[in-house]
Amino acid sequence: MANTRPLILITNDDSINAPGVRYLAECVRTMGDVIVVAPAHPQSGQSSALTVGASLRIKELPSDMDGVRMFSVTGTPVDCIKLALNAIVPRKPDVVFSGINHGSNSGVNVLYSGTMGAVLEGCLEGIPSVGFSLLHHSMKADFSLCTAFVANIAAEVIASGLPEGVCLNVNIPAKVMPEGIKVCRAARGYWTDDFARYLDPQGNPFYWLSGRFINLEPEATDTDEYWLSCRCISVVPVSTDMTALSALKDMSTRFDS
Amino acid sequence: MANTRPLILITNDDSINAPGVRYLAECVRTMGDVIVVAPAHPQSGQSSALTVGASLRIKELPSDMDGVRMFSVTGTPVDCIKLALNAIVPRKPDVVFSGINHGSNSGVNVLYSGTMGAVLEGCLEGIPSVGFSLLHHSMKADFSLCTAFVANIAAEVIASGLPEGVCLNVNIPAKVMPEGIKVCRAARGYWTDDFARYLDPQGNPFYWLSGRFINLEPEATDTDEYWLSCRCISVVPVSTDMTALSALKDMSTRFDS
Repeated sequence: MANTRPLILITNDDSINAPGVRYLAECVRTMGDVIVVAPAHPQSGQSSALTVGASLRIKELPSDMDGVRMFSVTGTPVDCIKLALNAIVPRKPDVVFSGINHGSNSGVNVLYSGTMGAVLEGCLEGIPSVGFSLLHHSMKADFSLCTAFVANIAAEVIASGLPEGVCLNVNIPAKVMPEGIKVCRAARGYWTDDFARYLDPQGNPFYWLSGRFINLEPEATDTDEYWLSCRCISVVPVSTDMTALSALKDMSTRFDS
Repeated sequence: MANTRPLILITNDDSINAPGVRYLAECVRTMGDVIVVAPAHPQSGQSSALTVGASLRIKELPSDMDGVRMFSVTGTPVDCIKLALNAIVPRKPDVVFSGINHGSNSGVNVLYSGTMGAVLEGCLEGIPSVGFSLLHHSMKADFSLCTAFVANIAAEVIASGLPEGVCLNVNIPAKVMPEGIKVCRAARGYWTDDFARYLDPQGNPFYWLSGRFINLEPEATDTDEYWLSCRCISVVPVSTDMTALSALKDMSTRFDS
């Protein structure tokens, strides 16, 4: 008899050793068969990067969760999805879940996020895909307050899927019981990039990235930044097609020849 | 007297040693002051990845092109833009140009491309930004046939800028004189990921990514894939905002609580 339980593929960017990915597996493991394929090493800020000039290894790890198999891959989150689909899962997964990330992926962070890189990859493969992020960087972050919300979103996506070419970027306020879930758009913004400058023992400079996020529309009340500030969980539908459709006509006038 | 020549910041993902980035600098150097800040090592497929857990170094290299300064950075294309703006350029650049990439960044490749990662970063910083890619992977690729087209697009962007939040992904057919320039949308598609599987000397498996691009809409006549097949240069306006606006209402109905 064919296995009709949903197959749930889970990854993250904080590595297989991060508490968040175990927590996500625990949250959804009664909903189907769970396979975790996550980076062997931290991959924060890896976006949709993939490994083109080097080899990858897979290692199955012992799992103490019923119905959950765990694998590490020596690459990026996108590598994890690609290699999982090609060499690990027994059938096409019904959903891809990524996270729970230790830290925010709201606003423009979707562009840099390894968590969301994996989600975009799942979406490109035609699989309903969702990224979950908690607004707390610590490896000791408390995920317990968001359990019911994560489970509800996961169950709804398993039951009804997502539109083609659309995935979800879910961000969760930290240290509070969320007051609800709000679908919204990403706030426009950017990072101020303050590089710390050091001198090595030979007197040569080197640099280390820091910086903070600037919300360019702090007055808007329909953005993820706004709803997160209201202690709500933000759900941003994200498109894998980056074409700026609204600019096509003007650009044609200027550049076509 | 203030310097009123445009400041042109150039990067790529094939590294400071790739012929394409030198070619691009040569193409535009009469249009302004040119500063090239490119990765010390190849960064293909690095998307918008940034270096969060390690330091970066800058090295100025000798340049044999009049009006062009050249720097290498030990990081990703996004690192190059961030560090250039923070620690190298004397004033905010008027434009960011990235490339010329050795290989295509059409269709869905915009998501994986380090060339376009740098362009998105320039755009987020409010700088008109354009990525150029030639559909030829070889380091011996011939860029000479596209000279006038690249120069025309660059001059137009320097003169008139680009809309806020919109950058350009320019792809150029190889080994032919382009028949024109066409503004268009990115073709939907994905990569079939065929991993080559090997055994190491100890008999343990490892994997190497290969694959090929599948165009999901080969009949469409308004996509970059179509116009490139017609020997035209494709210009896709790309948005830094990935929100799937058309899905907001349906998703609200399903997830708001």
